[in-house]
Amino acid sequence: MKLESLQDLLIHELKDLYSAETQIVKALPKMAKAASSEELRTAFEEHLEETKKQVERLEQIFERLGTSARGKKCKGMEGLLEEGKEIIEEDGEDMVKDAALISAAQHVEHYEIAGYGCARTFASLLGQEEIAELLQETLDEEGAADKKLTEIAESAINVEAAHAQHE
Amino acid sequence: MKLESLQDLLIHELKDLYSAETQIVKALPKMAKAASSEELRTAFEEHLEETKKQVERLEQIFERLGTSARGKKCKGMEGLLEEGKEIIEEDGEDMVKDAALISAAQHVEHYEIAGYGCARTFASLLGQEEIAELLQETLDEEGAADKKLTEIAESAINVEAAHAQHE
Repeated sequence: MKLESLQDLLIHELKDLYSAETQIVKALPKMAKAASSEELRTAFEEHLEETKKQVERLEQIFERLGTSARGKKCKGMEGLLEEGKEIIEEDGEDMVKDAALISAAQHVEHYEIAGYGCARTFASLLGQEEIAELLQETLDEEGAADKKLTEIAESAINVEAAHAQHE
Repeated sequence: MKLESLQDLLIHELKDLYSAETQIVKALPKMAKAASSEELRTAFEEHLEETKKQVERLEQIFERLGTSARGKKCKGMEGLLEEGKEIIEEDGEDMVKDAALISAAQHVEHYEIAGYGCARTFASLLGQEEIAELLQETLDEEGAADKKLTEIAESAINVEAAHAQHE
């Protein structure tokens, strides 16, 4: 990682996010398939479509910066998705598995919230306001996706899971 | 990971957080030492003291649950802190390095926000309100720590870093 200018750091952060998002695009269909709750499956499917648009938004930014989107593998996201994969492959009570999938997905969301938050701040400080606005748009979507997962956990899934253990 | 009951999942999440927090206790002094900005160094030092209390809070919870805190290595946090270590070892413009340290720390904070948020929800759904309240206390602290890092980035560090590249 080059740490000579804030612009370097912004590009580093954006490449990390691009790698993260493209990994998420591959993982979400598997997570949707593994979900038992209709509501959770739909949430994952809808977030997949949103994520594809977020990838395009990043590509727009790279074009604007005249830089390639490639060149960094986001190991942080790789580890988080590995955790999700383990849950998918695990046997268990359906609703508990759903709760575990929600937890994995919220770790993923928060990784992105941290990344987009920093990238937005760096872009803004560099006076690149249009880029900062594009990043803020995705940041808002990630925040909303995270909130929705908490709502699903609170409303449907975990209550049933909590009951399941007493059956 | 056992996915047979929500209680299993709660304990899994808590062990993950315990491993994460103990790793953070070891990493924060190094991050404080690597920070150039006085404000950032102080923030890391203060968060170290807060983190030690959060570890104790988790130990209280494990005692209440009659379960050992040990037994899981949080690989997610290991990866995030590895990223922080790379920044520490890297040469570069002081203020840019500080901005990179903030980014690493915010990824760490958000991992914890996701974990504590899920654990709090699971505890609450299991009717373990005292545990849920202890977790909420830490969750609020992590949220405040994250917000403070954004403020440091916005106020002091990044502006200087942005200027540094034009010198």
